[in-house]
Amino acid sequence: MDIIVLSPEATEEQIQNILKRLEQFGFKTTLSKGAERTIIGVIGDTSKVTEDEEERFKVMPGVENIMRILKPFKIASKDFKKAATQIRIRDYVIGGKAIHVMAGPCSVEGRDMIIDIARRVKDAGATFLRGGAYKPRTSPYSFQGLGEEGLKYLKEASEITGLPVVTELMDPRDIELFVEYVDIIQIGARNMQNFRLLLEVGKVNKPVLLKRGLSATIKEWLMSAEYVLSQGNPNVILCERGIRTFETATRNTLDLSAVPVLKQMTHLPVVVDPSHGVGKWDLVPAMAKAAIAAGADGLLIEVHHNPPEALSDGEQSLRPDVFSDLMKELKAIASVVGRELM
Amino acid sequence: MDIIVLSPEATEEQIQNILKRLEQFGFKTTLSKGAERTIIGVIGDTSKVTEDEEERFKVMPGVENIMRILKPFKIASKDFKKAATQIRIRDYVIGGKAIHVMAGPCSVEGRDMIIDIARRVKDAGATFLRGGAYKPRTSPYSFQGLGEEGLKYLKEASEITGLPVVTELMDPRDIELFVEYVDIIQIGARNMQNFRLLLEVGKVNKPVLLKRGLSATIKEWLMSAEYVLSQGNPNVILCERGIRTFETATRNTLDLSAVPVLKQMTHLPVVVDPSHGVGKWDLVPAMAKAAIAAGADGLLIEVHHNPPEALSDGEQSLRPDVFSDLMKELKAIASVVGRELM
Amino acid sequence: MDIIVLSPEATEEQIQNILKRLEQFGFKTTLSKGAERTIIGVIGDTSKVTEDEEERFKVMPGVENIMRILKPFKIASKDFKKAATQIRIRDYVIGGKAIHVMAGPCSVEGRDMIIDIARRVKDAGATFLRGGAYKPRTSPYSFQGLGEEGLKYLKEASEITGLPVVTELMDPRDIELFVEYVDIIQIGARNMQNFRLLLEVGKVNKPVLLKRGLSATIKEWLMSAEYVLSQGNPNVILCERGIRTFETATRNTLDLSAVPVLKQMTHLPVVVDPSHGVGKWDLVPAMAKAAIAAGADGLLIEVHHNPPEALSDGEQSLRPDVFSDLMKELKAIASVVGRELM
Amino acid sequence: MDIIVLSPEATEEQIQNILKRLEQFGFKTTLSKGAERTIIGVIGDTSKVTEDEEERFKVMPGVENIMRILKPFKIASKDFKKAATQIRIRDYVIGGKAIHVMAGPCSVEGRDMIIDIARRVKDAGATFLRGGAYKPRTSPYSFQGLGEEGLKYLKEASEITGLPVVTELMDPRDIELFVEYVDIIQIGARNMQNFRLLLEVGKVNKPVLLKRGLSATIKEWLMSAEYVLSQGNPNVILCERGIRTFETATRNTLDLSAVPVLKQMTHLPVVVDPSHGVGKWDLVPAMAKAAIAAGADGLLIEVHHNPPEALSDGEQSLRPDVFSDLMKELKAIASVVGRELM
Repeated sequence: MDIIVLSPEATEEQIQNILKRLEQFGFKTTLSKGAERTIIGVIGDTSKVTEDEEERFKVMPGVENIMRILKPFKIASKDFKKAATQIRIRDYVIGGKAIHVMAGPCSVEGRDMIIDIARRVKDAGATFLRGGAYKPRTSPYSFQGLGEEGLKYLKEASEITGLPVVTELMDPRDIELFVEYVDIIQIGARNMQNFRLLLEVGKVNKPVLLKRGLSATIKEWLMSAEYVLSQGNPNVILCERGIRTFETATRNTLDLSAVPVLKQMTHLPVVVDPSHGVGKWDLVPAMAKAAIAAGADGLLIEVHHNPPEALSDGEQSLRPDVFSDLMKELKAIASVVGRELM
Repeated sequence: MDIIVLSPEATEEQIQNILKRLEQFGFKTTLSKGAERTIIGVIGDTSKVTEDEEERFKVMPGVENIMRILKPFKIASKDFKKAATQIRIRDYVIGGKAIHVMAGPCSVEGRDMIIDIARRVKDAGATFLRGGAYKPRTSPYSFQGLGEEGLKYLKEASEITGLPVVTELMDPRDIELFVEYVDIIQIGARNMQNFRLLLEVGKVNKPVLLKRGLSATIKEWLMSAEYVLSQGNPNVILCERGIRTFETATRNTLDLSAVPVLKQMTHLPVVVDPSHGVGKWDLVPAMAKAAIAAGADGLLIEVHHNPPEALSDGEQSLRPDVFSDLMKELKAIASVVGRELM
Repeated sequence: MDIIVLSPEATEEQIQNILKRLEQFGFKTTLSKGAERTIIGVIGDTSKVTEDEEERFKVMPGVENIMRILKPFKIASKDFKKAATQIRIRDYVIGGKAIHVMAGPCSVEGRDMIIDIARRVKDAGATFLRGGAYKPRTSPYSFQGLGEEGLKYLKEASEITGLPVVTELMDPRDIELFVEYVDIIQIGARNMQNFRLLLEVGKVNKPVLLKRGLSATIKEWLMSAEYVLSQGNPNVILCERGIRTFETATRNTLDLSAVPVLKQMTHLPVVVDPSHGVGKWDLVPAMAKAAIAAGADGLLIEVHHNPPEALSDGEQSLRPDVFSDLMKELKAIASVVGRELM
Repeated sequence: MDIIVLSPEATEEQIQNILKRLEQFGFKTTLSKGAERTIIGVIGDTSKVTEDEEERFKVMPGVENIMRILKPFKIASKDFKKAATQIRIRDYVIGGKAIHVMAGPCSVEGRDMIIDIARRVKDAGATFLRGGAYKPRTSPYSFQGLGEEGLKYLKEASEITGLPVVTELMDPRDIELFVEYVDIIQIGARNMQNFRLLLEVGKVNKPVLLKRGLSATIKEWLMSAEYVLSQGNPNVILCERGIRTFETATRNTLDLSAVPVLKQMTHLPVVVDPSHGVGKWDLVPAMAKAAIAAGADGLLIEVHHNPPEALSDGEQSLRPDVFSDLMKELKAIASVVGRELM
């Protein structure tokens, strides 16, 4: 709220009321009378004006419109911190020169299964293990995940392979379990604006991978990151996973331009999930390569040893051999854009 | 999953595998060889096939596509129950001939304030009191609601005026409080796919007002209703409140066609929230009238005695006198479409 | 282009260059140095600054952003003309107290057919006859309309019934034919930004019904109206017919909030086409009633005497008896909102 | 139209009527009675059934729904022709191993200017010259292009540099000019469903570059290509240039997943225009690299020697030196994905 445009019918008394209210906030003002509209420039630290206060100015008599110059998020902004945030997890650093591929099945289906896949994706060059223990499913009749048992299997697979684990938290009541078992707590697209959940993960000492909501603007996404950061947890990884559009040929529309946009707006690392973005395994390699070329710091990729038997999302999972071939191409592209992939 | 389209390259062995798997589910099949594609018709109660199982069929070798004839929701469907669901709350019935207007401020800002507004909206003809005690806000720095204190004030205002209360639940840990203080539990748009929250409200004996998510299809919305219904709570009210589109002249795009579509698909009552749908108070009356004309069973309308001082959403709140005038017009339209508004 | 926000790194020399360029346009300026950003207020008739010129300012070194206070359209704006535009066509006035229903088949399929339907819709109270002679079809293999022959049948039906005719022009080379045969020239949604066509219809003395493009913002739609108005033709009718969203339960999402928004922004009349908006005949009555309740000046409704035999869009056409029943309800709603329907 | 789902209330007479009508088309049928629905399988060359005819089936009494297995486009489909279409233009082949970059200014602003830019982009490795002589502009008050004069300058720049020219046609009345002056006729996004224009370019012997409409599905885009192909012109190049979504951080949302999707569906070459897709020059390099990594056959990139003085779209144009640096990176990525860039 840095510029207030007055309506052509604003009375002198209304203008004085607006100026008085601005003074109460400690702001200085400049009044510019143009040919068709008069505007008030607001001088001072307007970033302290909350959205609510701004809305109240908006409905004051005499106000036609309000324009904000600065962004509504603060800690997430490059204005706050220029240097890229680098997040150390065991031996790896996310947000540095190295690109990290987080791979694994959609759901943890059993102990042997997750250990087997963990080994295979590690052999192919993945540095993190992904896999769902709690699954958000459109239908109440679909498989909802193994729950705590799944977390234990993930931890065991992690200990065997050395791969840190990223998995989704859906309920604030499960947070202690997650602190115990996982390395990165994922907040899913459907919970991007589950603000209670964001506050909880803001209070723990674990990196958070925050997926973009299906209809979230980049600004709203950063505001959700701000929820986590505002509670003291500085380690947020943003994950583009496709937005909802009218196009039905793909499950969602993967918005790769979010990668360079975010690199301009925030210091937080950005990864891309092409598997959910397109929803069909045979489109995943093209979009994984494109994501690295666009500047992503990492990828989430679904890999399953037997997609036709997967308990969820088999349609978008790569077989281990396809994944392994893809990793070789990704390495070459990473090197062209000045990055490294192990 | 009622029709399986085979790819032109499907081998005889692949077809046999598919048929065998269908048999294991207890289905009968018919094979139709067309000029360009062969299709398998699946006969039996295919509504028992989960999404997961369907996906596994989809990636079987030889399958090109799968088509589903029946809808994925069951209890919410008109196939399940033809008669309109009528929900009795104290003296009122939602889903019957009477149209109910749920009015009040965006946020409960204090005791006197909510009692004052409750009296005014009751005088104008509202039959329910709305008001937020817990507020989902895009920014962590915005007013987040009075919490439990707000619930108490709502209850007091309800006791004084006789208006039942509808207010939003954001966290499964607050459910006991809500059971104690409120008449209808609202699930907000941002939590429409917070499945853990849906399961919780499915287990209590309180009607649930389920808002449509910003990017939710009508089918997904009904699937979320199904989450509640599947836990034993039959009293779900659907609330259209605008979807996200490219248009920026309004806060969201109010999809009024959802009203007649839902009336064909489900027996659940449907209400409309024009205040959030358009986001500007001077557009609310037109859309409130349109909603009744389109067949809605009720409305949620934000009313505030002093919008420029509102702690949230002042821009979209009606003043009590404007609300009162609108109620007269709504009554006349209700009567034209064969409904009643007190 | 009324406010220029300078980047925090702008040098004194860059600022002087910007100020000099603004002076060359004849503008006065005010410079406000805030805590985080400096802004230049531009004083003078900035509405003369074209989009192109504005873009060139945007990329000048030292500029971070540009904000425009006034709307980019002029003649279409309420700032230009406060009184509602009323368009007289034979005995009817569009944009006055009377609501007009333009009804008829999607395509003119033959002489007798169009005369028959014209009579039926007139009997039910329609005041204009709609029907396509040139049809924009997604597929080159679909029926493309009868062309000039169709225009002749429309004219004959018009002479017999007295109903003026509205029909779609697709090609600038057909304009003389249209001037001869039709009363209102329709520009379809797919041609809303066919600027050559807009310039042509701006030069003739016939009212233009301009449909909203599937992905057009209200602002862009008014800019397209401005194309027509700028050529000297003041008689433009805006027609909302649904926008493209992710929802697939309806053909498009009918954006009824466009009606009250347009009533605030422009003096031009606004009509609604619920048939194309929803695409299913059994949803049309609800949305037609809602459109009138929302303040529309008229409706376009598809009516066909035998939808299963229609050469196009049968799925969204009303049978004459359903249309006739609907007209009675529309009359009652029109009267509630202070309008008249014959 | 290959499967007809009957409504549960369909009478025997209605079913017989449907079967009779199918027979009149020469189809054989199979009837499968399931637990909840009966379906009719339609056997024969159903690709001959037009959309119109399909719609008429849809509204026959007793029909609940119709499902189509095959795609509505034919000549554009990979079913029609498996081998990639290769389009020879002078010394170059689009759709082969070589990737082609078409570069130049948004608008041709003058003779010297276009010759100068043509030389610079050629030096950097571009193989085609782009530049607008006729410009579709949102506002009637913006620069509309130099028209025929612009075409002449393009031709002269082409003769001097040897670069073939691609430029946009807006009006069927200009087609002879284009045949004389240009090498590839571009159809812009706003005219993707200007079917009269598509029919015209289908009749000439010039390759057509067909941009995707802002709200066009991939299927609709291919149907528009089919319009051109159906008239005898086999040389269509598809150009992804961003779709309209709710996100405002970029001008449009560049849908790179369209590239691998199209590679599965059609034999036509696919190029990408990142300049229009994102609308900001500093986002263009990331998306250009991503497009090549995703498998595009070429790029359209706006280059201007002095963006702050450009008569249009300066904000999204690269300076020649930035373009030249980008070309080096593109070459390296092309080589990783098995392609060549001169």
